[in-house]
Amino acid sequence: MNTADLIALTATEAAAAIRDGRTTSEALVTAFLDRIEARDGEIGAWVRVDREHALDQARRADTVRGFGNGIGPLHGVPLAIKDVIETRDYPTENGCPLYSENTTRRDAASVAALRSAGAVVIGKTVTTELALLTPSKTRNPRDTSRSPGGSSAGSAAAVADQMVPAALGTQTAGSVLRPASYCGVYGFKPTFGLISRSGVLMQSHTLDTVGVLARSVDDLALITDCMSARDPGDPVSYDRSQPRLAKIASAKPPVPPNFAFIKTPAWKAHADPRMQEAFAELSGELGASCQEIEIAGLDSVLEWQRIVQLAENAAYYGPLQDKGRSPLSDGLNTRLDEGARVPVRDYVAAVASREKAYAAIEELFENFTAILTPASTGPAPLLSEGITGSPIFNGLWTYLGMPAVSAPLMEIDGLPVGIQLVGLRRDDGRLLRTTRWLATRLEAVEADT
Amino acid sequence: MNTADLIALTATEAAAAIRDGRTTSEALVTAFLDRIEARDGEIGAWVRVDREHALDQARRADTVRGFGNGIGPLHGVPLAIKDVIETRDYPTENGCPLYSENTTRRDAASVAALRSAGAVVIGKTVTTELALLTPSKTRNPRDTSRSPGGSSAGSAAAVADQMVPAALGTQTAGSVLRPASYCGVYGFKPTFGLISRSGVLMQSHTLDTVGVLARSVDDLALITDCMSARDPGDPVSYDRSQPRLAKIASAKPPVPPNFAFIKTPAWKAHADPRMQEAFAELSGELGASCQEIEIAGLDSVLEWQRIVQLAENAAYYGPLQDKGRSPLSDGLNTRLDEGARVPVRDYVAAVASREKAYAAIEELFENFTAILTPASTGPAPLLSEGITGSPIFNGLWTYLGMPAVSAPLMEIDGLPVGIQLVGLRRDDGRLLRTTRWLATRLEAVEADT
Repeated sequence: MNTADLIALTATEAAAAIRDGRTTSEALVTAFLDRIEARDGEIGAWVRVDREHALDQARRADTVRGFGNGIGPLHGVPLAIKDVIETRDYPTENGCPLYSENTTRRDAASVAALRSAGAVVIGKTVTTELALLTPSKTRNPRDTSRSPGGSSAGSAAAVADQMVPAALGTQTAGSVLRPASYCGVYGFKPTFGLISRSGVLMQSHTLDTVGVLARSVDDLALITDCMSARDPGDPVSYDRSQPRLAKIASAKPPVPPNFAFIKTPAWKAHADPRMQEAFAELSGELGASCQEIEIAGLDSVLEWQRIVQLAENAAYYGPLQDKGRSPLSDGLNTRLDEGARVPVRDYVAAVASREKAYAAIEELFENFTAILTPASTGPAPLLSEGITGSPIFNGLWTYLGMPAVSAPLMEIDGLPVGIQLVGLRRDDGRLLRTTRWLATRLEAVEADT
Repeated sequence: MNTADLIALTATEAAAAIRDGRTTSEALVTAFLDRIEARDGEIGAWVRVDREHALDQARRADTVRGFGNGIGPLHGVPLAIKDVIETRDYPTENGCPLYSENTTRRDAASVAALRSAGAVVIGKTVTTELALLTPSKTRNPRDTSRSPGGSSAGSAAAVADQMVPAALGTQTAGSVLRPASYCGVYGFKPTFGLISRSGVLMQSHTLDTVGVLARSVDDLALITDCMSARDPGDPVSYDRSQPRLAKIASAKPPVPPNFAFIKTPAWKAHADPRMQEAFAELSGELGASCQEIEIAGLDSVLEWQRIVQLAENAAYYGPLQDKGRSPLSDGLNTRLDEGARVPVRDYVAAVASREKAYAAIEELFENFTAILTPASTGPAPLLSEGITGSPIFNGLWTYLGMPAVSAPLMEIDGLPVGIQLVGLRRDDGRLLRTTRWLATRLEAVEADT
């Protein structure tokens, strides 16, 4: 296989190619390393890539396969890790000078699980400052005058630019789905608690979720499967007692899915008018299988997410500020000051409201397979605006702990925009299956026109 | 059986007597109702007892048994319910005039479970104001010039005075174990999440736990078994995947238990010197099976419990205060004001520290079966002091979510004092088995001397 073919492979396809002997891990990793060397000067997706270390891992994978030993589902496949997630071989700098050369020499539970599945950790990708809102150096590969979004900026950009088949990100409001939307790749934030957060920078214990950026639904499923296991080290992690996501996601839905199109209170004030039009069109294309639903009280849910994130940010990052404000950006200092002033009564109420709010949303799934809503307010903002875009269409579902996907199935003026699908907690498999169904359906519509 | 025999029965014994036809529920309930009528003028343990309604339930139980139908493990046995727990037949007044005649007409999940087991709800017992620290009208049956403790004052006093075999209480710091200690009965706060809190006054979602007051270890086990089931209505409730507590508790320990005697940072400043002596003696009697252990950082744990309770009290009760401060006591108003001023960063840190703190304590159980520590600072305070005593020996373990028992195995100047045993989370059965072992062991010591 030539370089262009290799870097176009998804993780699932790459694993199969290595398994079947159509390529080697070394060839595959070399192709991606070359792509990174050629492109990352312009894109700035990576914090660290160690060519020799990556090739070492790849050659070792090839040796193991050569012995005819059993191999894992990601054997020899390079993956990127957002630089808020610890890896034993690279520092974890969290996009903040206070963590410069911060070397823990251990793998996060999620990274350890990926290594067990055979993956090659090719490098660490750029995050915004402490996985919050200050822009990073990364450019959007689809239009380098634009932001890739944040905070999983490097992961989204690297996947979009074929510098790696897939990458880990994290989401507290919209940090996986928003960059996925802007960069035109798939982003998946699984159910809260499905993937352990041990070894991940804590910004909000109530909200932080590890997620995946990739170029296919199969990859979201396969990579999540490899990481989902009960970890006593993360109190919110739970046992999975369900078939593997990859199996469910690749199956045909038993009945055609139907969608609850929810505009949310963010629609009127925040959604780009072109996005509003595009969703009206989408809704029309889906016909009877898509129904616009209004849910009362979502404005409170948005506010609860905001309060929880602000207060927990202040609790986890405030101690950094106590050491000196200057290594942090002005924006972050202001945000942490604001968080420290959140009345504790409001915070407790915001945390305690989550289950009640979820119960109201849960009912919806008696009649619908998934919620359909924008993954971002519109296409990526220009770098000159100095922002990474708003997570206002994502925070709601993160707060509710529901699995959510951004699917790159929409374009506005040539720029990608994600369609967000949201599923029932612990029903990640059905959500991925529904996403795949929607992708197929919309491709068919396109082929017709 | 005569009245004196009947009211001396434990719930387990009473259920067996009804099952075997040695008495009827009507005779049993009548005996307790008569005892309540004779004694409650002095003790003040009850908010409401409806004689006819209780006898109706009893007669119905006898009819069912007469038909030879299958009967539950508490069939026909009267139980008391602390007046912060909803029952469909009585108001739930929460010890606060704002809830006067508050009738919800539904059973808490725990009460519904007890009814399914066949129990007769004989009445509601007195709680302190909103299950906090303001004393109630209740007197300690062991010395009526003394406090029964709080907040489960009526439940402990009613059980101690043989007005009911057993009762439900609730604990946020020490509201089950402290009154048990002062009144000379068994008190049990199971692992956080074992019993649903649906339908129970919420004072602190992180700490509130339903517990049992009774006159035997068997009763603690049996009654808890009847209530422990996953309830999706309480997000912290968990599935139990273990044999019934009653079965474990009644077995002989496979090896003799050994105890970690932990004084906690409260010892020096708070423990009554007579209590300190009594514990030195107890430790001596247990010999090599009891070892004094110091654990670093318990002062922080005490502080975290305090912060969590204060802040959550303010969040849940503050809205009452917003309607007008006068129906609340001055002490409570002051407490809620203090809670509202807790910095949100401290509160988040206090909540987030729990699992780490527990991990450190958990290690101890590699070498010890249970923690041994006082259940209260000493015997019950005099009513004239205007306090219900301090929960400082209990709050620690409540915060850590660990199961804890107060066992009435100690006396100081003729007044009861509880020995507190604390076990591993989800290992409630072993804790109860160990408690029974200790009771037998100390009775043997007493018989020898």
